[in-house]
Amino acid sequence: MLTHIAVDIGGTKLRAASYPYDTTEPTKVTRVQTQHADRTLLERVVEIITSVWPENEQVAGIAIAAPGPLNPFEGVILSAPNIPEWVNFPLRQIIQDHFQVPVLVGNDANLAALGEWKFGAGQGHHHLIYLTVSTGIGSGIIIDDKLLLGEIGIAAELGHVTVLRDGPQCSCGKFGHLEAIASGTAIAKWVEKEIAQGASSVLSINTQITARKIAEAANAGDSLSIKALMRAGTFLGQAIADYVHIFNPTIVIIGGGVSRSGNLLFIPIEQALQNAIFDPHYLDNLKIVPAALGDDAGLLGALALIRSDRSSIISKLE
Amino acid sequence: MLTHIAVDIGGTKLRAASYPYDTTEPTKVTRVQTQHADRTLLERVVEIITSVWPENEQVAGIAIAAPGPLNPFEGVILSAPNIPEWVNFPLRQIIQDHFQVPVLVGNDANLAALGEWKFGAGQGHHHLIYLTVSTGIGSGIIIDDKLLLGEIGIAAELGHVTVLRDGPQCSCGKFGHLEAIASGTAIAKWVEKEIAQGASSVLSINTQITARKIAEAANAGDSLSIKALMRAGTFLGQAIADYVHIFNPTIVIIGGGVSRSGNLLFIPIEQALQNAIFDPHYLDNLKIVPAALGDDAGLLGALALIRSDRSSIISKLE
Repeated sequence: MLTHIAVDIGGTKLRAASYPYDTTEPTKVTRVQTQHADRTLLERVVEIITSVWPENEQVAGIAIAAPGPLNPFEGVILSAPNIPEWVNFPLRQIIQDHFQVPVLVGNDANLAALGEWKFGAGQGHHHLIYLTVSTGIGSGIIIDDKLLLGEIGIAAELGHVTVLRDGPQCSCGKFGHLEAIASGTAIAKWVEKEIAQGASSVLSINTQITARKIAEAANAGDSLSIKALMRAGTFLGQAIADYVHIFNPTIVIIGGGVSRSGNLLFIPIEQALQNAIFDPHYLDNLKIVPAALGDDAGLLGALALIRSDRSSIISKLE
Repeated sequence: MLTHIAVDIGGTKLRAASYPYDTTEPTKVTRVQTQHADRTLLERVVEIITSVWPENEQVAGIAIAAPGPLNPFEGVILSAPNIPEWVNFPLRQIIQDHFQVPVLVGNDANLAALGEWKFGAGQGHHHLIYLTVSTGIGSGIIIDDKLLLGEIGIAAELGHVTVLRDGPQCSCGKFGHLEAIASGTAIAKWVEKEIAQGASSVLSINTQITARKIAEAANAGDSLSIKALMRAGTFLGQAIADYVHIFNPTIVIIGGGVSRSGNLLFIPIEQALQNAIFDPHYLDNLKIVPAALGDDAGLLGALALIRSDRSSIISKLE
């Protein structure tokens, strides 16, 4: 029976799994830390694929979710903020030469969107926006049942859209992007700044403040933490209104660690979205929902990519 | 020989033309004012179609470019700011019943984008953004050689994306949209406000200030008018950077009356775009160009729609 292997190269975790042809239940899964003192990342990727290789089955292909920007048509990592040695790095070709099976490479957030669309919260939708709000903000967009990729596959960067002119600096170097205001990192920075300026909170700047601690404090009633999530949710909701005017989708799926804050985040998102939509027809049948696939979204997205017969990546490769 | 009829319902001008099957040279063209004291707009549309009907040829179909928001799959005008009586108005069905030939209806800016892609500045590009900057700001987006329409066809409203939080009010009622800052109307309002606050200019608020007069004054060296176009161009360029991060296109086409301001607008657009792009790969092979089709973009867009075999509108209708 044919098997597909999916790999997800995350900032902290490296995952791989092998899936028999017709299921989303992996037969083997390996999860390790991405960084390792004595091994290059490429060696780690080869090792983890080997670790999930099936004993008695044939492997039909490997799909890899990787950080970008990357060119998915060629499977080349253009640059990756956390992997300085991967510049114009032909990951697809290297892995294909090593294992001698077809390999596809996709942007991790794009593939998480594809996974949610095929196996998760977005099933049955033809026009879908996926945002992952964690350390940064990544995204993927499905239009007419196809991933939006653009000319060289670096489209759908909704985290790098300006929402506050002259706002805080983004990880990318520019200013006022959604990621610089509503990502987990940005939320934590905002709370630190408020506390440094005298705001009262159960959180202390003497310990590291994280979005997770802020969500916990908010759920316990800490007013500064509640305000921080409301502020992030409001910016997210206003940005989503813009994206809805651009894409007219039927579903917006929000994943990533920060999305686990629940109603403290989703209620301001919904309110800001409704206030900012300029024509009520955009809200007909529009749902804003949390992601369904959790930490394995990248793996299932990679699996969706290699199983998708309508994938632009695949059609351009053929 | 089969003939196609194209109609463009503009805010001030109503146009129709008939085109023999293989050319973009019309055999008959009629242009009249949209408004008429004694006739409804629907009567005017029926009359203008009749006026270009060929004597001895068969009409294969009629395509109509209309103001939106509209549902192009059903050919229903949801609402039109300048036509209060057209609310949920089934234009396609009415015209089809009257003339007994197939009819398609599309958003005017979407069809102008389609026209530029098929016959104008965007030929050969697969990923294209078109902006028309005039009274308002309309847009159309081509992805993988197809119009971006969304679930009910009201996508691609790039003029209604927030570029200045808490900025001036837009024609749609919301605040800080690109249209509220960089449209011809917005540019004129900004100049009026500056003059009222004491700025010196060859323009006077005792006569009506228009974007066209501002462009003329700017070309004659009026510093306030130059500043007004630089400001609009800067906002346009920053917004275009966001759209480029979203769509990774190879061409951005700018049409509409304000685009005729030339370098005084295009140079600040280019500069702001280059400053705001977060990864240089987005600029590889990206061109920012003026529209090629001029006032007949809507007609040629309607013609492109009815001749397009890859149109989403057509495929959903079949």
